[in-house]
Amino acid sequence: MKLERLRQSFEELARFTDEGEGINRLAYTETERNARDFLIEQFECAGLTVRTDYAGNVIASREGKFPDLPVVATGSHIDSVYAAGEFDGTAGVLVALEVMRSLADEGVETDHPLEVIIFACEESARFGASTLGSKAMTGRLDPAYTRSLADKTSVTLMQAFEENGLDLEEVHLAMRFQDEIKAFVELHVEQGPVLEKQGKAIGVVSAIAAPIRFHVHVDGTADHSGTTPMDYRHDALLGGAEIALSVERAALAELEHGTVGTVGVFSIQPGAMNVVPGSADLYVDIRGTSRESRQRVAAALETALNDVAKARGLNIWMDKISEEEPVQMDSKLVAELKAICEERGVAWFEMPSGAGHDAMNMASLCPTSMIFVPSKDGLSHNPAEYTSMEQLMEGADILRAFLLQQAKTL
Amino acid sequence: MKLERLRQSFEELARFTDEGEGINRLAYTETERNARDFLIEQFECAGLTVRTDYAGNVIASREGKFPDLPVVATGSHIDSVYAAGEFDGTAGVLVALEVMRSLADEGVETDHPLEVIIFACEESARFGASTLGSKAMTGRLDPAYTRSLADKTSVTLMQAFEENGLDLEEVHLAMRFQDEIKAFVELHVEQGPVLEKQGKAIGVVSAIAAPIRFHVHVDGTADHSGTTPMDYRHDALLGGAEIALSVERAALAELEHGTVGTVGVFSIQPGAMNVVPGSADLYVDIRGTSRESRQRVAAALETALNDVAKARGLNIWMDKISEEEPVQMDSKLVAELKAICEERGVAWFEMPSGAGHDAMNMASLCPTSMIFVPSKDGLSHNPAEYTSMEQLMEGADILRAFLLQQAKTL
Repeated sequence: MKLERLRQSFEELARFTDEGEGINRLAYTETERNARDFLIEQFECAGLTVRTDYAGNVIASREGKFPDLPVVATGSHIDSVYAAGEFDGTAGVLVALEVMRSLADEGVETDHPLEVIIFACEESARFGASTLGSKAMTGRLDPAYTRSLADKTSVTLMQAFEENGLDLEEVHLAMRFQDEIKAFVELHVEQGPVLEKQGKAIGVVSAIAAPIRFHVHVDGTADHSGTTPMDYRHDALLGGAEIALSVERAALAELEHGTVGTVGVFSIQPGAMNVVPGSADLYVDIRGTSRESRQRVAAALETALNDVAKARGLNIWMDKISEEEPVQMDSKLVAELKAICEERGVAWFEMPSGAGHDAMNMASLCPTSMIFVPSKDGLSHNPAEYTSMEQLMEGADILRAFLLQQAKTL
Repeated sequence: MKLERLRQSFEELARFTDEGEGINRLAYTETERNARDFLIEQFECAGLTVRTDYAGNVIASREGKFPDLPVVATGSHIDSVYAAGEFDGTAGVLVALEVMRSLADEGVETDHPLEVIIFACEESARFGASTLGSKAMTGRLDPAYTRSLADKTSVTLMQAFEENGLDLEEVHLAMRFQDEIKAFVELHVEQGPVLEKQGKAIGVVSAIAAPIRFHVHVDGTADHSGTTPMDYRHDALLGGAEIALSVERAALAELEHGTVGTVGVFSIQPGAMNVVPGSADLYVDIRGTSRESRQRVAAALETALNDVAKARGLNIWMDKISEEEPVQMDSKLVAELKAICEERGVAWFEMPSGAGHDAMNMASLCPTSMIFVPSKDGLSHNPAEYTSMEQLMEGADILRAFLLQQAKTL
C-alpha cells in the first residue's frame, strides 16, 4: 500500500466541497454526487464493478474465486456535516480504496468476493436524519418518516432522490439479505481523544453506544433582580445548574462502563441582566453501551429533578425525546481484529464508539465490527479534524489483513 | 381624596399605549407625548401651572403663600418598558395628581410651593439609558453619551428630542439649583415581594441599592458528547453552573445586609445536543446598599472563578461592566415619614430599594426620600403588575401628609 497515493486520494476528494469553511459535502447534493462519480471511476480503475442501489449507496464489488460465496464488505460514507473536516467517513472509504488498489497491484485473489460500500446520507446535517443509506440497506427505514423529511431550504428528501435519479418510493428495494454478506467492517476516525491519550494506534470497537435523550423544563419565577431578596427567589437558572451538575456526577459514577451524560443545550428565559431567570430548558444526552448503566444515570437525573424542585420551589418536568438501543459488535470479529493487531505488534485498545455509525445498522444484517484510527485532540465535525497519513496507513494495514482473513486468500 | 377618581386616572392613562401586550408607552414617543399632554391638562384643571423643561420633564407647580420659598416636590415617570404594567412610575404621578386635586377641593394653602414632576425617560427600554430626565435635572448627564444613544429602529435620542420640540444640545439647561427644592419624595410601587410578604402597607426607603456588574466568560473545549469520556472533558456549562451557584451562596451569606446577586444572562456555545459546551457567558448583577457587603459577594465570585478554572481546566476571565454607587435617602425625611406612618397607625417597613429610581439622582440635588406601596406577588415590568386602589390610597394619604408637613400648612 502506498502512503502517497492515499494522501493524493484525500487531496482529490477534498476538492469536492461547497463554499464555506472546511468541507461542505452535504448528502444527496450535486457536490456529493460529483464526488461519488469520481470515486466510482477510481474503484473501476482498481478493477471493481460498481453499482448504485435504490438508496444511492455505492457498492463496489471485487470478484472472488467463488462468486456464490457471501461477500466480505467494508465501507463508510463521504457526505459531511456543514464545516466538516476531511476524515470523518472519508477515511473508511479512501482507506478501503487504497486496500483495493494494493490488491490489484499485487494481483491478490480471494475466495469470497470483496465489497466497498459508500453509504448514502450518513450525516443528519441536511435532512435531520442519519444513516439513511445503511438503514435502507438493512430494511430499517420507515417510509412515512422519509417522506416527511426536508432540508432547511425546503427541498424534500423525495426531491433530492429525484435529483439523484432515484425514486424514494422504491427505496425499500435497497434492502439486502442476511446471507449476502459474511462480515462487515467499518474503519472510521475515533472522533474522540481516547486513542491519542492512550497512545494506541487502533481502536477495536466493542459496541456502539446509543443515546437516551431528555428535555428538562424548569419553571421558576421571573422576578426583578434588584427588588427580590435572595430568600424569596425561585431561580430557574440555579435549579437548572444543579441538574446539569447532577448529570455529570451520575455519569462520573459510571466511568468504568464508559457511560457519558451531557447537557449540550441550556437556555434560560427571559435572559435579562435585571431579571431573575424565570424558566430554563435543558436537553440531556446520556449515552452508553450498557443499558443498565445508562438507566442509572437517567434515574439519578430524575431524582435530582425532584430534589431540586422541592428545595427551590420550582416546577420541573422531563420528557424523554428518544431512546435508542446500544449495538454490540460481533464478538468473534472483535477477537479476530485484536488478534490481527497482536500479530503485527500494533498497539490496540478495545473501546466503545460514542457516536453512531452505519455499522450499527449493518449489525442487524451480518456480523459487524469497527476499526478506529486516532483523531488529533479528539476533534471531529470540525475543519481542524485530523488523522495523519501514517495513522491511516496503520488502519489500512489492519483493514487489509482483516478483509483477506475473512475472504480467505491462499 | 377620592378612590374612584384615582381609579379613573389610572384607567384614562392606561389608554395611552402602543400596540402589544400590556402597556407600551416608551420614552419620547408620540404616545407618551399624548399621555403627557393629557396629564398637563389634568394638573392645570387642579390649579397648577405646568411647564416642560429642556429634557422633556413636566413640572407642575402649585403656588405657595411665599413664592420665594424653595419648593416641596414629588413625582415619578409615565414612560414604560415594553409589555409593562399600569403602575410602575404612573403610581407616583397619579397619586400626586390625586393629592393635588384633594388640596384644590379643600382649598388648602401651603407656605412653600408644591411641585409634581413627571420625569422624562426613566426606563432604559428605548434608549438603553435610564433616568435621563432626572439626570438632566441634576446635572448628571454626559453630553457625549447622550449624543450616542439610539433606539432599536436607529432613531437617535437627538431625533427623538426634535420630535418632542426639544434640542438635545440645550439639555443642560434643564439643570436646577440646590436651593430651589427643599425636599423631594417619590412614591413608587415596590416591584418586589417584601411588603406583601411582611403584611405592611408602606415601605419607607432607607437607601437605593446600586449594581456592580460583571461579564464572566468561561472557555472550555467543545467536544463530541458521545465520544469524549467524562474525565477528559472541559465543559464550560458545568463551570458556569458552579459559578452561578457560588454567586447565590455568597449573596445568601449577606442576607442581613439585603445584598442580592443574580446571574440573569447565561448562554452557552455551541448549544447542540451532541456537543459538550465549549464556552459560556454569564452576566452577573450584584446589588446592595452596602458597598462593603456588595464587595464581599464580588470577591467570592472571583474566588469561585479561580477555583472552578483550576478544578475543571477551564480558562475563565471576568470584566467589570459597571459599578454604581448606592444612594442613601435623607435620614431626617426617613424619620419623618416613619413618624407620619406611626401617627396614622399605618403598618410600615423600612427597606432598601433594589431598583433604581429618579430619586437616586434627585438625592444629589436636595434631601430626598421614597415611599413604596406593595406590588402583588412582587411583579413589575409585567402586564400582571398590580397594586390595589386601596393600597394606592394609603400611599396617597402618607404622601399628602408628608408634602403638607414639609410645605407647612396652617
